[in-house]
Amino acid sequence: MEKEKKNNDLTSISELGEFRLIEEITKTFEIVNDSTDLGIGDDAAVLDFKGDKILVSTDMLVEGVHFDLGYTPLKHLGYKSVISNLSDIYAMNGLCTQITVSIALSNRFTLESVEELYLGIRAACKKFKIDLVGGDTTSSNKGLIISITAIGRSVNKTITKRTGAKENDLLVVSGDLGSAYMGLQVLKRENEVFKVNPKNQPDLSAYTYLLQRQLKPEARKDVIDFLSKNNIVPTSMIDISDGLSSEILHICKNSNIGCNVYEEKIPVSEELKAACDEFKLHPTTVAMSGGEDYELLFTINQKDYDKIKNSNDLTVIGHITSKTKEANLITKVEQEVPITAQGWKSF
Amino acid sequence: MEKEKKNNDLTSISELGEFRLIEEITKTFEIVNDSTDLGIGDDAAVLDFKGDKILVSTDMLVEGVHFDLGYTPLKHLGYKSVISNLSDIYAMNGLCTQITVSIALSNRFTLESVEELYLGIRAACKKFKIDLVGGDTTSSNKGLIISITAIGRSVNKTITKRTGAKENDLLVVSGDLGSAYMGLQVLKRENEVFKVNPKNQPDLSAYTYLLQRQLKPEARKDVIDFLSKNNIVPTSMIDISDGLSSEILHICKNSNIGCNVYEEKIPVSEELKAACDEFKLHPTTVAMSGGEDYELLFTINQKDYDKIKNSNDLTVIGHITSKTKEANLITKVEQEVPITAQGWKSF
Repeated sequence: MEKEKKNNDLTSISELGEFRLIEEITKTFEIVNDSTDLGIGDDAAVLDFKGDKILVSTDMLVEGVHFDLGYTPLKHLGYKSVISNLSDIYAMNGLCTQITVSIALSNRFTLESVEELYLGIRAACKKFKIDLVGGDTTSSNKGLIISITAIGRSVNKTITKRTGAKENDLLVVSGDLGSAYMGLQVLKRENEVFKVNPKNQPDLSAYTYLLQRQLKPEARKDVIDFLSKNNIVPTSMIDISDGLSSEILHICKNSNIGCNVYEEKIPVSEELKAACDEFKLHPTTVAMSGGEDYELLFTINQKDYDKIKNSNDLTVIGHITSKTKEANLITKVEQEVPITAQGWKSF
Repeated sequence: MEKEKKNNDLTSISELGEFRLIEEITKTFEIVNDSTDLGIGDDAAVLDFKGDKILVSTDMLVEGVHFDLGYTPLKHLGYKSVISNLSDIYAMNGLCTQITVSIALSNRFTLESVEELYLGIRAACKKFKIDLVGGDTTSSNKGLIISITAIGRSVNKTITKRTGAKENDLLVVSGDLGSAYMGLQVLKRENEVFKVNPKNQPDLSAYTYLLQRQLKPEARKDVIDFLSKNNIVPTSMIDISDGLSSEILHICKNSNIGCNVYEEKIPVSEELKAACDEFKLHPTTVAMSGGEDYELLFTINQKDYDKIKNSNDLTVIGHITSKTKEANLITKVEQEVPITAQGWKSF
């Protein structure tokens, strides 16, 4: 029967955290099917049905926890919900082919509002060539809950996990970091202003890029296509929507190595720098811990450096060191600072 | 932006119903991948990655809508959540191999209560040889939400859809019907008594079978194994957890045929009959519309009749008629009554 909180013998979920919770509850589960190559613990599961490797990833988004409809248009929410799942499939060096979408919604939603949500889902499906093949729709007692499962397949039967980074590999990141987080700060501030004065027409033109990164992020299928075209097989890869620092630590832990990351190399946009000035935040902190940048972090062998060095969109931010070393940030004044997880956790 | 209810121009979800909603919102989605054999519209999607046919089905369960923790132990809930998804895979004549489980839960839940839930999930995985390969865990503002995606594969590369029933085929159902619904009525009654007098110790021994059907249903993998062993390929098949009548209508509509179902043939348990007497309900109504019996309804060619006639667990309840006929129930007094959908809808 349901347990009550505030019983002193029991462990509250919030003190445990989401990641520990998953670890705790699934450690007693066994894998018994030959078709399961890789279970819980990476961006996606890997299945093998005697053909290609099949990738499966799933995500649940809860109103008031992951999104606020006060400043997130439903169409953008639908789009972003799909992007978030695609990013997990791309992070395995695979391509997504199908999704299922389940939603639970309270009776304050109308058919027209659900259609708005699905317009965004459809736009993402169309852009990334994904088929919507299933789902469930039900009522909720409060708010909107979206659960998406993405299914993909390997490109050239090569799956890239979190476990393969080797000493001297280069640490590479796509795009720029931190802008999605700053976009959220701008939206939150404007929402507070709106509550006080609903007639205020804010001028958000200085924040166009930041808002786009927050409201309409893109998944990096183009990076997977680039890697494939240039015959680069990353030694490890991970989606960094939970924040750069926590994901660097995942690569280090799973590959049993250390790394040096150079602060001056971390790619940030000019808009981010300007907004950080305004909000009195440090761009590096935001880039390291902000989250919601649907970018990819991966490691490559040094021999592949020539193939990526001319890319405007891929940045080498550091290199892998031996397992006796920690994950370190080398600051602009050449201080060595241990990287700690400050990822973007729901709990 | 989020729409408000009570705007007269807008369509409320409840007036539309869940099935219409899914139809409405997905009809503009196109299938673009060769690997998608079958999208929305059956118990599971069918994917083809040049190997076996892969089946994918997903379900979302919401506290207060699909279950009440006042009379559903968390362990049973976990078990049943998995069963519900397996049943959809079996209904395609496939076997389930993997599931992902996502949960959102409010802070009134403790680690120990989540572990209870997963004990049930694990028991189902163990019994049906399923691997848990992924999932998401997050907080909710209210209650528990469970979203499960099941992945399976065809047995002998043969998928059975809802579309293949032919005139003169036999309509067959597994197990008995209505008991799960009556089990729920018993639980609801006892819960009301409990609210008035928490010290009351009810004697539920007369309802053991009904409660088991409600709280710990089983998915009919054994039926799929039986069909495979006896070289029977059903012409159509569907899971009837939403109620027999609505699913008969799905088969008729999707296969473009009619049928005659004989009231006297519909399998019901002695316990159901006794409880129906007590609750002043008609056993046929309960069996036709109750729902939550995770049984299979399928059609077979008459030539396969000899292979199933000695089964104690499979019952021929009628036969398929031409598309010019309706779906009819032939009552015990030989009246012909059109079958109407009274399935178990959440909305």
